[in-house]
Amino acid sequence: MSHFDGVKDVHRVTDVYKLVSRSWRVGPTRIDLGDGVTIGGGAMTIMAGPCSIEDEKQVAETVDFLVSQGIHVMRGGAFKPRSSPYSFRGLGLEGLKMFASIARAKKIKVITEVLDVSTIEPMMEHVDIFQVGARNSQNFTLLDELGKVDKPVLLKRGLSGTLEELLQSAEYIFSKGNEKVILCERGIRTYEKAYRNTLDLNAVPYLKEKSHLPVVVDPSHGVGIRRYVPAMALAGTVAGADGLLIETHKCPEEALSDGAQTLSFQEASELFDKIKKLSQLELA
Amino acid sequence: MSHFDGVKDVHRVTDVYKLVSRSWRVGPTRIDLGDGVTIGGGAMTIMAGPCSIEDEKQVAETVDFLVSQGIHVMRGGAFKPRSSPYSFRGLGLEGLKMFASIARAKKIKVITEVLDVSTIEPMMEHVDIFQVGARNSQNFTLLDELGKVDKPVLLKRGLSGTLEELLQSAEYIFSKGNEKVILCERGIRTYEKAYRNTLDLNAVPYLKEKSHLPVVVDPSHGVGIRRYVPAMALAGTVAGADGLLIETHKCPEEALSDGAQTLSFQEASELFDKIKKLSQLELA
Amino acid sequence: MSHFDGVKDVHRVTDVYKLVSRSWRVGPTRIDLGDGVTIGGGAMTIMAGPCSIEDEKQVAETVDFLVSQGIHVMRGGAFKPRSSPYSFRGLGLEGLKMFASIARAKKIKVITEVLDVSTIEPMMEHVDIFQVGARNSQNFTLLDELGKVDKPVLLKRGLSGTLEELLQSAEYIFSKGNEKVILCERGIRTYEKAYRNTLDLNAVPYLKEKSHLPVVVDPSHGVGIRRYVPAMALAGTVAGADGLLIETHKCPEEALSDGAQTLSFQEASELFDKIKKLSQLELA
Amino acid sequence: MSHFDGVKDVHRVTDVYKLVSRSWRVGPTRIDLGDGVTIGGGAMTIMAGPCSIEDEKQVAETVDFLVSQGIHVMRGGAFKPRSSPYSFRGLGLEGLKMFASIARAKKIKVITEVLDVSTIEPMMEHVDIFQVGARNSQNFTLLDELGKVDKPVLLKRGLSGTLEELLQSAEYIFSKGNEKVILCERGIRTYEKAYRNTLDLNAVPYLKEKSHLPVVVDPSHGVGIRRYVPAMALAGTVAGADGLLIETHKCPEEALSDGAQTLSFQEASELFDKIKKLSQLELA
Repeated sequence: MSHFDGVKDVHRVTDVYKLVSRSWRVGPTRIDLGDGVTIGGGAMTIMAGPCSIEDEKQVAETVDFLVSQGIHVMRGGAFKPRSSPYSFRGLGLEGLKMFASIARAKKIKVITEVLDVSTIEPMMEHVDIFQVGARNSQNFTLLDELGKVDKPVLLKRGLSGTLEELLQSAEYIFSKGNEKVILCERGIRTYEKAYRNTLDLNAVPYLKEKSHLPVVVDPSHGVGIRRYVPAMALAGTVAGADGLLIETHKCPEEALSDGAQTLSFQEASELFDKIKKLSQLELA
Repeated sequence: MSHFDGVKDVHRVTDVYKLVSRSWRVGPTRIDLGDGVTIGGGAMTIMAGPCSIEDEKQVAETVDFLVSQGIHVMRGGAFKPRSSPYSFRGLGLEGLKMFASIARAKKIKVITEVLDVSTIEPMMEHVDIFQVGARNSQNFTLLDELGKVDKPVLLKRGLSGTLEELLQSAEYIFSKGNEKVILCERGIRTYEKAYRNTLDLNAVPYLKEKSHLPVVVDPSHGVGIRRYVPAMALAGTVAGADGLLIETHKCPEEALSDGAQTLSFQEASELFDKIKKLSQLELA
Repeated sequence: MSHFDGVKDVHRVTDVYKLVSRSWRVGPTRIDLGDGVTIGGGAMTIMAGPCSIEDEKQVAETVDFLVSQGIHVMRGGAFKPRSSPYSFRGLGLEGLKMFASIARAKKIKVITEVLDVSTIEPMMEHVDIFQVGARNSQNFTLLDELGKVDKPVLLKRGLSGTLEELLQSAEYIFSKGNEKVILCERGIRTYEKAYRNTLDLNAVPYLKEKSHLPVVVDPSHGVGIRRYVPAMALAGTVAGADGLLIETHKCPEEALSDGAQTLSFQEASELFDKIKKLSQLELA
Repeated sequence: MSHFDGVKDVHRVTDVYKLVSRSWRVGPTRIDLGDGVTIGGGAMTIMAGPCSIEDEKQVAETVDFLVSQGIHVMRGGAFKPRSSPYSFRGLGLEGLKMFASIARAKKIKVITEVLDVSTIEPMMEHVDIFQVGARNSQNFTLLDELGKVDKPVLLKRGLSGTLEELLQSAEYIFSKGNEKVILCERGIRTYEKAYRNTLDLNAVPYLKEKSHLPVVVDPSHGVGIRRYVPAMALAGTVAGADGLLIETHKCPEEALSDGAQTLSFQEASELFDKIKKLSQLELA
């Protein structure tokens, strides 16, 4: 392109990400979390729980709810990135330990966000999946370090990240040796302000075609309005997602963060039933 | 808001559109096209056909295909809006007459785009649904005139139209007396260029909640890449759409416009089967 | 691009617009409005006035103000496109006649928006420049007709129009025979909601490089907040604009539309002085 | 807003950032870099240099050029964030030491990007301004740590960061005790792909009004095309910027990164002359 005279090196996409592409590995990657829990390779894996870990009672109630629903992975933030320095920033490492000990006692796997290289090591034994949030999607130092860890990493698309950038960020982790990478669509920033973000489900067939990695959809952050979360979760399911991240809380009105996008247990339960019905249909 | 000092009148959304809102009419609007064909009110209505009408052979083949699939509405452009003045602009009125006469002989309803007030009258008797394209979504002169016509109007969201603007444009038509308005999500313009547009399925639960009008999804223009159209069509279905606009052509490689997003009859047939399966599930 | 298999014809930009490009005409186009008033070709032309024409008093006051400032072109809408059918839609043709008769008595040229093909003819004798608004930037029927008219046309970029689309829309007019086309940047739609639109001044050097047509900036709609209009007007001037569209009103608080972005006469006068100073600097 | 039922706490903007706002400090903040070099408070400060530090020869040539131009701050990356793991990632700490030692010998101040908390300490003595890049604009761990450092921090707006988010990120640094924060507009991500980014100059009057902190514009990354950089640099100057970041290289065609947006010394010199002329005009 003549706009870009002065550029010395332009690479084709297939050069900038390679190991995470279908040309490197044709079949889908399936990630094993132990105890028979997997992500990718055909089944639908639901990961549910509150935005933030708040206290033992909340964790225990959620764990019991997930067990009753046949769900094996619980989400919950202990380290929270917040736009304002004056917002609640999570319970930190102690909160994570409490969360993990209650969840694992019931064989529930733990997914939680990691914000910084320095906390990888202490978090390590209490985490089953490290989550990299949208704001860290191009924090290359963090990606480099997670590439050296023997734990799955769920990598969210940036607030306005392109899919090519997401795949390149996954390549950072994968090329350092950690092949357990999960891609996550979580809504992008557009001109439309009728919802918190614009969940971009077009990303699902695109990512599934370009990459062998599992693709997860987060409709809770994606659309950000509780009443629309079920429709988007179902849509993500039939679009081909390998998993869903769903925010649920016993009492969303009392959640310390993101209550507006969080389903009650009753609402979540109804949604899970529908997802199961859909997953049983032979569509692919 | 202090930004906007100097503004005299700020209306609440419920003031700027009223007749198309759920506060005006609680139950869903069902539009009757005759011969038992309807849009809205529960069933899924598929509208399929080529981007542009090309010749009698193409129309006849498409009509036969739709009949074989149990589909009752055919799309096809006779007047084409094109960014460049040097592109193919459609067969015009003669093409439309030919299209309508072949389709109606097999009881297939006709949906086609209207570009200008001056062509409403001559198109009238050959059209079952007037389609207003994204570039005319805020052509208020055209909307005013379509408000006086006794034919359904399918109104597409603008290239970067907000949902509130779409509802206000619908209000133009409805408030002039034409209550047969269908809303259509067709993909928005975002920073992401991995696809032609970003189909915004979040619009479906939003529009269904705010308005009693039927909501249709156009995954062909919406994502604009043939391989991803089926996933997005299915996703739109479970998100709650009342109808789908699908581009199909006997030989997409030879289509005069938009071949890249057009399904072959074989691909379309497989998709229709899946849509039927999904529509039979009880999810709502 | 392999995304787009099935596409038969991809043209290079230089094919989709040609007559408006620098490869067709190397030097800048200068448009003569008569009485020594010109746009393009070096000088800075300010066009100022209210958003909407309201009454004789308002027009007369504005004309007197412009005369006192040495400004020769007055803007003012008689036909207003409004998102809601319930908003003020302008005084129409009678308002335009009144506007033109008062302005021309003082040798002030008239620029006003045309919404529809049917009003071109009656507006003709009362207009010196037809303005095509952002919502009609791809109303190809209107562009075709304006291509047959012997009056300058100021063409605004769409709400989310690309610059390539703007140039193609200009090509519609130019290729029909009307070579007096003026391009206008008026702010685009982005995720940022701190201002009404995001005035995109990058468009100025881009359009000046690609096209020989004059380029005008509308900072009033572009940023949409009165306090920021002067900074953006000055920035547009040094970015290379051939003209500016500035909203001004004797009493912005009482303006029937867009008061929030309209300068008082006092504010406008201070701005005009600064623009003159800048225009005298030798920067190019 | 009824969309957001379930939200417990909504703060007004003035609550989410407070110390960086004009309500906390009315007059402009002026940051002293020593040796009479300042940013903010009236004067225009140009910071120029290559995208990446490459070798001693390149640094020495650039330093000599800046001295000849009367410019006192040199930019140059030693740690480079790159979308792809396979791109050049900079010379690292050794490169920075070399850069600083050559620049400081001629009393040129050093601004360079910091990517990670762990490198703050070793970089400390070789840096006069820490630059936080767009991808780290919401890396709250990094912002927290920079808040404890006694060096100025130039904070870039995120790729699709809102201005409110930028001010909140500045508040992170400021509220931890480091009051030497500089805000930087560097182009946002929009649908328009005619340029690398869309430099958003509307941000300048907005940020100057809301905050007492100095505001710098980076037209090189902002528009990303060499031929348009001068126009945007001039426009940023009259829009009210306190400083400019300009990429320049003795031979842009040979630059290891971002050559397409980098001015030659000759082009830069012509631009600096124009900026000086503009800065001497009394516009404010």
